[in-house]
Amino acid sequence: MKRLFLILSAFLTVLAGHAQNVDSLTIKNIFDQALTSREAYNNLEYLCSETPGRLIGSEASIEAQAFMMAYFKNLGADKVYYQEFKSDAWKCDSAAVFIVLEKGKLKALHCDALGPSLSTPALGITAEVVEVKSLDEAKRMGSEAIRGKIVFYNRPWDPTIINTFYGYGNMHDQRGHGPAIAADLGAAAVIVRSLTNCSDHIPHTGSTRYGETKIPAMAISTLDADLLSETLKKNPATKINMFIDAKEMKQITTYNLIAEITGSEFPDEYIVVGGHIDAWHNTAGAHDDGAGCVMSADVLRTFKTLALKNKRTLRVVLFMDEELYQSGGDAYAKSVKEKGEKHLLALESDGGAFTPRYFTISANEEVVAELAKYQPLLHPYGIDEIKAGWGGVDIGPLKSQGIPLAGYGTDSQRYFDLHHSANDSFDKINLRELQLGCGNMAAFIYLIDKYGIGE
Amino acid sequence: MKRLFLILSAFLTVLAGHAQNVDSLTIKNIFDQALTSREAYNNLEYLCSETPGRLIGSEASIEAQAFMMAYFKNLGADKVYYQEFKSDAWKCDSAAVFIVLEKGKLKALHCDALGPSLSTPALGITAEVVEVKSLDEAKRMGSEAIRGKIVFYNRPWDPTIINTFYGYGNMHDQRGHGPAIAADLGAAAVIVRSLTNCSDHIPHTGSTRYGETKIPAMAISTLDADLLSETLKKNPATKINMFIDAKEMKQITTYNLIAEITGSEFPDEYIVVGGHIDAWHNTAGAHDDGAGCVMSADVLRTFKTLALKNKRTLRVVLFMDEELYQSGGDAYAKSVKEKGEKHLLALESDGGAFTPRYFTISANEEVVAELAKYQPLLHPYGIDEIKAGWGGVDIGPLKSQGIPLAGYGTDSQRYFDLHHSANDSFDKINLRELQLGCGNMAAFIYLIDKYGIGE
Repeated sequence: MKRLFLILSAFLTVLAGHAQNVDSLTIKNIFDQALTSREAYNNLEYLCSETPGRLIGSEASIEAQAFMMAYFKNLGADKVYYQEFKSDAWKCDSAAVFIVLEKGKLKALHCDALGPSLSTPALGITAEVVEVKSLDEAKRMGSEAIRGKIVFYNRPWDPTIINTFYGYGNMHDQRGHGPAIAADLGAAAVIVRSLTNCSDHIPHTGSTRYGETKIPAMAISTLDADLLSETLKKNPATKINMFIDAKEMKQITTYNLIAEITGSEFPDEYIVVGGHIDAWHNTAGAHDDGAGCVMSADVLRTFKTLALKNKRTLRVVLFMDEELYQSGGDAYAKSVKEKGEKHLLALESDGGAFTPRYFTISANEEVVAELAKYQPLLHPYGIDEIKAGWGGVDIGPLKSQGIPLAGYGTDSQRYFDLHHSANDSFDKINLRELQLGCGNMAAFIYLIDKYGIGE
Repeated sequence: MKRLFLILSAFLTVLAGHAQNVDSLTIKNIFDQALTSREAYNNLEYLCSETPGRLIGSEASIEAQAFMMAYFKNLGADKVYYQEFKSDAWKCDSAAVFIVLEKGKLKALHCDALGPSLSTPALGITAEVVEVKSLDEAKRMGSEAIRGKIVFYNRPWDPTIINTFYGYGNMHDQRGHGPAIAADLGAAAVIVRSLTNCSDHIPHTGSTRYGETKIPAMAISTLDADLLSETLKKNPATKINMFIDAKEMKQITTYNLIAEITGSEFPDEYIVVGGHIDAWHNTAGAHDDGAGCVMSADVLRTFKTLALKNKRTLRVVLFMDEELYQSGGDAYAKSVKEKGEKHLLALESDGGAFTPRYFTISANEEVVAELAKYQPLLHPYGIDEIKAGWGGVDIGPLKSQGIPLAGYGTDSQRYFDLHHSANDSFDKINLRELQLGCGNMAAFIYLIDKYGIGE
């Protein structure tokens, strides 16, 4: 019996070794073509140059989807369609802010409205400024000190945090919740220091969540935040003139874009890979998240080009509205639930197209351990770890349906230099780093489709 | 006895855990200050803007060393001095190349002389071109086909090789040995396709090794290499006019720059950390290797700032002439041997200041295994692996003295976009990636100094 067991065990080891070899070769093929194709790169160049500022409700967002739809059709996807839903939207036409100096002279700062900021009156708001370093500090000051004034959240980035996504998280409360808290305290408006480690004149926008009361809210560049702070130290009665021209649009009709290759064995099981097609009004959205869209599309191209014959249906989803209300992710998850569609896994890329570093898995421990076994196969291509972690904003609403989620993780050091700003332009994309992202996403999906999860 | 062993073993485990914790905290301190200091970044900005083209023998190389010497003195290093030696040198004043079109019209290509290329006659060389894809192809064609002609080595970069240093190695024979082989076959001159994956108009220079006979040799941009190849397909009798004005300088006096903090316990044992101060005539030398110099200098700054009290003498060496004849590394190794200086290890950074990925160790298996144990301590800061591999060109001559060598490895994807070209400019440096390099080099040296090797 023991001998039989040994023979069987040796046989299984050989089989497993063989499977690893076959997988290595297929993955090498995937990378060989990813590294020699410029299609994802060219698609991203188009999105950045022809459809910048593609926020939900914008003309640019519609053009971007039409372009990607034509691309999917041209690839020969089995299905390509828009998934319609309703959402609020918002647009910013203009924003400006000035320090009112002596004798009425004005000093313009580099700024951008947060989404979905209220407009100011046509001549702007002129008021004194209260600088704080935290939400708690604002609350402690109370409505007496804050009423009628502009609250200026100015806690800087902590450069000693290594993963910049945590650095961002460490500052994020000021932008995300600062305006709502200031509004509750009777503030006239809010200014937030840009959420970046860079010392420069580029403002970084982003979303804020209002409560009952809305007030105008904007971000200023870090150098201007330093300047404003210095100015206030010299003269605490310094006034600011702040102007925003923005518009809310209620319940517009909008879309996610979906493309599929039908599964050869389990056509009713889905593997989702996606990014978000929308981008803030002030940016080309190269890394955030044009890159996630073109890399996801490239997974489909790879499966077609190499005839990889996915067992499950491979579904690429280009989500609308990650930035403002996350309505595209909600609409997708709602549709999955209503149709009772079985999803094996959803993978999102929304961390830019920098050099590959890891995949994160949001699922139970067994699934994390199972998927982590693929790391040695992807290590030659830059994947240092496959580990428990965040999936993504757009796929997040699938979590409550028990669907395993995954995120493609690139090196984080440069992301928040660019994020939500004019700096997030096509020239910041490195061809090879983007191609390696295409390869890693395709290879990871290939393995998951081939072996399933929990089988 | 068994119980005593268990108690002892538990005690040792606690001690080891304690040491790990203490080291983690020290390393956190090292990174906290690395990530909040702009000194390395500012030093590199100076080297790039004030001393570009600092090839051995140039005024710029002398100015760069004087600047770094003043910096080391200002830091309070215990010793700062020049290590004098003699070496040949070379400079290029001008280079140009033209395709001779119909009716005598000329089409200028983007080019740069290889070092140490011979000059052409004042009116240049005009000759037919023989395109080959390998040294073997040139040899097979023989002197009859090649005599009096210009040999054009045009095998392109293989983009499917993941680590670009191997991609470079895969093309390198054409530049390194192509001119010598062409000269043996009687060629008038050589043109080499630039050693890069980029499709652009930037020429990348580099060194070539001549045999007995020297002939003029240059690199042209990849797009111009494609253009020349197309032109030759249409008309194989196409002529080229090629011009180089360069000069060799025999046995000049030059220097390595050395700065030390004397060891508190073993002042006669040395740990070396360094990069090379020279850079090609066509570049600011930001990543290659200004970055290696300022990161090495920052190790010394870190030890001073945090008062880390190195047991061994910490010696920063900024080597001259890595690019042309590698004479600085030879001179340093010769001095070590003559003085019988005991070296624990030498660490070099010459792969750019991109995001951290690994350390490579060139030493026996035991030493590699011993140093690899530090990887978990550095993993939070981006070090994926500590593994057997290459040390560096400048420290290479120490190998024959049995000294363990190490190389700091950053992400390789962008390096050969810039290498030996005008693209290697300060704007390609990311502040945080450089700071992480400073931190990792300092932390690695800290551990090696603290625990020794083989103790």
